[in-house]
Amino acid sequence: MSEILDKFAPLFSPRSIAFIGASNTVTKWGFLILFNLLDGGYTGRVYPINPKDEEVMGLKAYPSVLDVPDDIDLAIVVVPPTHVLKVIGQCVEKNIPVGVIVTAGFGEMGEEGKELEREMVRVARAGGMMLTGPNCAGVMSVNSSSMYAMMPPFTPGPGHLSIASQSGNVGASMLRFSVDREMGFNKFISTGNEADLHAEDYFEYFAEDPETHVILSYMEGPQDGRRLFDIAKKVTKKKPIVMLKSGRTKAGEKAAASHTGSLAGSDDVFDAMCRQTGITRVESIEQMFDTARAMERQPMPKGNRVGIVAGGGGWGVLAADACARVGLDVVTLKPETLAILDEILPEWWSRNNPVDLVAGLRPGDFVNCLEALLRCDYIDGVLALGAIGFSTARAHGFKNSPFAERYNLGQMSDMFTAADIETAKGFIGLIDKYQKPVLVAAETVLGARVIKNESIPTLAENGVLVYPTPDRAADVMAKMAERSSYLRNGRS
Amino acid sequence: MSEILDKFAPLFSPRSIAFIGASNTVTKWGFLILFNLLDGGYTGRVYPINPKDEEVMGLKAYPSVLDVPDDIDLAIVVVPPTHVLKVIGQCVEKNIPVGVIVTAGFGEMGEEGKELEREMVRVARAGGMMLTGPNCAGVMSVNSSSMYAMMPPFTPGPGHLSIASQSGNVGASMLRFSVDREMGFNKFISTGNEADLHAEDYFEYFAEDPETHVILSYMEGPQDGRRLFDIAKKVTKKKPIVMLKSGRTKAGEKAAASHTGSLAGSDDVFDAMCRQTGITRVESIEQMFDTARAMERQPMPKGNRVGIVAGGGGWGVLAADACARVGLDVVTLKPETLAILDEILPEWWSRNNPVDLVAGLRPGDFVNCLEALLRCDYIDGVLALGAIGFSTARAHGFKNSPFAERYNLGQMSDMFTAADIETAKGFIGLIDKYQKPVLVAAETVLGARVIKNESIPTLAENGVLVYPTPDRAADVMAKMAERSSYLRNGRS
Repeated sequence: MSEILDKFAPLFSPRSIAFIGASNTVTKWGFLILFNLLDGGYTGRVYPINPKDEEVMGLKAYPSVLDVPDDIDLAIVVVPPTHVLKVIGQCVEKNIPVGVIVTAGFGEMGEEGKELEREMVRVARAGGMMLTGPNCAGVMSVNSSSMYAMMPPFTPGPGHLSIASQSGNVGASMLRFSVDREMGFNKFISTGNEADLHAEDYFEYFAEDPETHVILSYMEGPQDGRRLFDIAKKVTKKKPIVMLKSGRTKAGEKAAASHTGSLAGSDDVFDAMCRQTGITRVESIEQMFDTARAMERQPMPKGNRVGIVAGGGGWGVLAADACARVGLDVVTLKPETLAILDEILPEWWSRNNPVDLVAGLRPGDFVNCLEALLRCDYIDGVLALGAIGFSTARAHGFKNSPFAERYNLGQMSDMFTAADIETAKGFIGLIDKYQKPVLVAAETVLGARVIKNESIPTLAENGVLVYPTPDRAADVMAKMAERSSYLRNGRS
Repeated sequence: MSEILDKFAPLFSPRSIAFIGASNTVTKWGFLILFNLLDGGYTGRVYPINPKDEEVMGLKAYPSVLDVPDDIDLAIVVVPPTHVLKVIGQCVEKNIPVGVIVTAGFGEMGEEGKELEREMVRVARAGGMMLTGPNCAGVMSVNSSSMYAMMPPFTPGPGHLSIASQSGNVGASMLRFSVDREMGFNKFISTGNEADLHAEDYFEYFAEDPETHVILSYMEGPQDGRRLFDIAKKVTKKKPIVMLKSGRTKAGEKAAASHTGSLAGSDDVFDAMCRQTGITRVESIEQMFDTARAMERQPMPKGNRVGIVAGGGGWGVLAADACARVGLDVVTLKPETLAILDEILPEWWSRNNPVDLVAGLRPGDFVNCLEALLRCDYIDGVLALGAIGFSTARAHGFKNSPFAERYNLGQMSDMFTAADIETAKGFIGLIDKYQKPVLVAAETVLGARVIKNESIPTLAENGVLVYPTPDRAADVMAKMAERSSYLRNGRS
């Protein structure tokens, strides 16, 4: 095991946790976070620390960590700021290697708080203890420990995305997205004021962590730009860092300064840094997710040349616009490709990219047209629009119709749904065969839901990502092409 | 009743429909559209026209419209292109005032099709008949007739948004969004090739239609730019036209040309046209919906000065960035406003706009802070972030917990949920009191869903619109401010 994996093991895979400030008062973080930890099914041992109560949530409580008759890997600290120094002194004495300081009221409050924060770090470092926070929302580690030691009341399932967020509530939003979209997560760390550990320390660890495939980051301002630069440059060679950086505008910068005291710095400089280090910078929380999901589950494109297959003309036009706007090349189809498509499509098809399927209802066509594009050596990835879900949505309406018996609509319904599923399977096979990304945008959020209700694995679970609009799919393809270009040329 | 309302009544409120090309073959549009019409509960009389079958879906079929022993308001035509001329001749003979020509294979196919299309219009106009299409997806009119005579298999409930779309499948996406988001619609028209009626004709009608409050439009290229200009300029004084115009880029323009044969024209010119006529131009299908919903249900801001209340710092920073990026003024709070907020918030609050609530759990605070901003004469609208839903989401986790009895979590859960509902009610009251828009962005998509499950009216039903991210709420506020500026100054 590498040194860095060893160093972070007590934080992300602790065998035992001391929860300092555990409380029986339901509205306190000392209750709510502990509740999330226990309710989430953490696999290790938990020791509530509370000087007054004898037990919390059915667990024996101890007056201090020094009273716990067991080794402790991780201390979670929620006591008031005035108590934190003493508590850290005890943690050091107990040889606890890592503490997550949830408590707020430090550096973000002005000079006095900053001094307290510095003193806390001095005590911890002198004792060989590493700190997350203060002023953070906690830590989550799903795959290894089912540990949800954090404020947000969400418990996403296992996955391969890991997040380091400089804001607890932006982090919470990311986790909430995962619940809505049935995505999994591996680790989440709310980095808080970063008095000791910085965002880049977690990046460095995530790069080594075999359970993390894509790194997500929300950043207001780096603590140490140079170090972030050096570490990011190394990390992005192994794994994508998908980053949402705020403070782009004067208004945002001012807001960041009063939120975490971060100096956002020049946005142009930060942007250049991202280009030079291969950080994938995104514009919004939604784009962060859209991009991370694709980078986790799809092959990377070799370049920026795209083909578009559309189940309807309008979406094709919107997709062509969206692609061009973000720098993707909507390629002109070569004669040999047109010849293949001529065999599949009715004679009045547009003979153009986007390939408009002309409102056909034959699902095989969609898969065949997709393959005609994927096999082209001059196409790096494909957007497939309106592909899946429409038939299922229609079929759904058939089920309870008064005409069901007369027209055998139950069977038609099954056939329509099966057609969508066949298309989905076809897509999965082609992604695998050609090792090129296929991003779907479709009326299918609905269809996919219907499909799911009928307990067939969701498309996403099978690596077929469905976006609600062509724009969002195009944005993601562009971010993937950008990363791919960086990996080839050392810049995007 | 105005002349234009009279003219369009047979299209959008027909008392009787001849469905020409009705079919008992389930995979044909002659079945699927008729199915949607009957299944949707159309309130008028339906006469299937089919020269071979004696009945379709339980209704007596007639060989031609001339055989129908009743007056017909609307003809829906799905027969092959070669039959359309004859059919229209019969409609004229029968004095049918409007036809919706779903059939494709006309102007979009080249010169021969164009000629057929021109001939069709000549015959219709000579007979005083008005045509929608050809090559369109049909028509929907919910409020007056519960009429879903269209290809997309969606049946949104009643509402006050009406759509004219130059693409059937982009139109379908809009309707699908309404199903997902529980929004209502009034009318939908797929304008097709616009051989006779143009997009601007429908705008002109929607402007007069009392059931339409906001007009939505997807456009690839206007048939008659000058006329669109003149009509839009009049219409937008009464009602917003929220328009998604494609063909912004070379790639999109090329795609549009091969889709509907539209000439997209210079995007700069179109953009200038939108500014001069007060058309609200949006960037994506999502933005179109986000904007239309707000314009339907919220008061308009008087200017571009915004206040931000945030239930967490990170979202506040992202919101400030997003507002500044789209030209909203994130105002500096005046001393008197700070004084009011000082009374509500703990002493360490940021004393800044965004107003960060510092992770408090007291719901009254949120409403009070919101009011402190809304009462300012230098603030035109407010973004409220992370306001609602988080407590409900947390409460949800309490319900089946093993700790429920011990800590009385059932009651806590009810209290947390009630807190969200109180906040929502407070918001509704304040929007009403101050007549300023309040756009919510929150972890609440989840919370709102939970609230809904407990059968309390959704926030949206009460005029509180919830967006999934601060960016999307900011975009909408900017579009509203733009319209408001146009109405005041004659330009945005």
